[in-house]
Amino acid sequence: MSDAVAVGIDIGGTKLLALAVDENGAVVGRERLTTPRGDPDALVGTIVEAARGLAHGVPVGVGVAGIVARDGTLRYGPNLDVTDLPLQARLEEQLDATVTVRNDATVALYGELRAGAGQGYEHVVMITLGTGVGGAVFTEGVLVEGANGMGGELGHVPVVDGGRRCPCGNHGCLEAYASGTVIGARAREAIDATDVETVLREQQDVDGKQVTLAALDGDEFALSVLREAGYWLGVGLVGIVNAFDPAVVVVGGGAATLSAEIMLPVAAEVVGERVIGADRRDVPPLIPAELRDDAGGIGAGLLAHDERSGGLQAGS
Amino acid sequence: MSDAVAVGIDIGGTKLLALAVDENGAVVGRERLTTPRGDPDALVGTIVEAARGLAHGVPVGVGVAGIVARDGTLRYGPNLDVTDLPLQARLEEQLDATVTVRNDATVALYGELRAGAGQGYEHVVMITLGTGVGGAVFTEGVLVEGANGMGGELGHVPVVDGGRRCPCGNHGCLEAYASGTVIGARAREAIDATDVETVLREQQDVDGKQVTLAALDGDEFALSVLREAGYWLGVGLVGIVNAFDPAVVVVGGGAATLSAEIMLPVAAEVVGERVIGADRRDVPPLIPAELRDDAGGIGAGLLAHDERSGGLQAGS
Repeated sequence: MSDAVAVGIDIGGTKLLALAVDENGAVVGRERLTTPRGDPDALVGTIVEAARGLAHGVPVGVGVAGIVARDGTLRYGPNLDVTDLPLQARLEEQLDATVTVRNDATVALYGELRAGAGQGYEHVVMITLGTGVGGAVFTEGVLVEGANGMGGELGHVPVVDGGRRCPCGNHGCLEAYASGTVIGARAREAIDATDVETVLREQQDVDGKQVTLAALDGDEFALSVLREAGYWLGVGLVGIVNAFDPAVVVVGGGAATLSAEIMLPVAAEVVGERVIGADRRDVPPLIPAELRDDAGGIGAGLLAHDERSGGLQAGS
Repeated sequence: MSDAVAVGIDIGGTKLLALAVDENGAVVGRERLTTPRGDPDALVGTIVEAARGLAHGVPVGVGVAGIVARDGTLRYGPNLDVTDLPLQARLEEQLDATVTVRNDATVALYGELRAGAGQGYEHVVMITLGTGVGGAVFTEGVLVEGANGMGGELGHVPVVDGGRRCPCGNHGCLEAYASGTVIGARAREAIDATDVETVLREQQDVDGKQVTLAALDGDEFALSVLREAGYWLGVGLVGIVNAFDPAVVVVGGGAATLSAEIMLPVAAEVVGERVIGADRRDVPPLIPAELRDDAGGIGAGLLAHDERSGGLQAGS
């Protein structure tokens, strides 16, 4: 464990992954715990336990789904059932270390920038396809967090005005057309409403993963559902690319791990045809993320380390 | 003229506005020339003439519509009929000064940041409504220019998949629903296709400005056309606000000067209802730009000045 320069902790709605990382982002220690929900004290205690179990005296980075204020207060963590928890301050009291708390998508992007698919770029958009659709942006060599710490909510770019209801409360968001949840729902709807032939008809509780596995196995119906999601991913990315002009778009998240080879070419074709000045510019490639489930923990650790060492080190 | 710290030049498709500015962005000298089109040498000559006429030895900033590479090469200037013109290098050869060439929307935003509606903010989105819809972004204290110098093309965020054709070649862009050009076209279409009552029916060649003047005069039809454009501006801004989380959205451009009081409340309502976490965050206000036609010249001059003096000075 002598190589550990930081601990990074990725807090999911059910599991909490803590990683000790070296200065290049290699994982030199790992611990997985259950996330306590609706209990701020237990949450703080679990993070402290995980960090102490891996290393002492090194910076600790934490990535958490929700709205994180600039001072590391978790203003709203829907998966954790907590609001207005001064997480960074509470952790610094208990750990003999500097602590950095950020949005989970931001730290996952930072992991990819420093140790994954985004290495060497100064302009990177990351999209994560999972239960929902997340996003994070690195532009001009800085992480986009925004005035409320809510920048990079790329899953909530509208793609269909008045379209499918999104968990965020709005209608027609990219998330409502391209998440793993939606891929499963679209498949179930079509199976129930039509007599389309598909191996999925025999299965219980069809979800995004089953659709993807069937598609990879050549099921034409499942392929069409994924291609449709890929189309909407492309439509959303047209606006995102026009806004940020990234050198590359990194696509990660659980739902993308298997489906990338089907969805990304469809999305890339839409982007290549529709972004402004497509024939006079470099159109960013859509590439899969590399660090998978470790991206958040690696990124949180490296971000905490780099901030204490004098600033972000991603980009060229 | 002793106060001039820089000259800023805003190159439009027909007119070229050169301003001498002091360090606060106050205009201390002004010259207006005709823009030569399709003749790179004449363009360079006109800029040199304008700059020399106002001040000697001070930095010169230039804002131009089109794709501007990081080295100040104008890769594509559709309004000027030029491609791949190394404008910054050519100007530096002829002027005894450092020269900065940037996109016109970027310098207009910089003007508003330093001397107009964006003062004091670190996260600002600017939208310009004119013949087209332009945009520029300042986030985390940096100007978003992107990998190709094409960041901030906010007029080309899709709002209706497969919708109205946009001059950019795509369909359904914000620009195709909210530009001054489109406001005029929508009004003409409805007047031709229906028997709607409106004072515009008597007028020749209805354009966006006429629609706006009629609306300000209480014409219900004209109001409905502007409100529809305001609605789509709001839809586009939902995605833009979710992506960047700005503290404020500054709306400028010729078409906004008169129509802001009608369009912005409609757009603001859409943004306020639909951005993610609207009830748990500060939703950015939509405010009119302040510098009007001088924004580009002032911003180009201040940007050239600030870059030579050690970096951007906007934000807090």
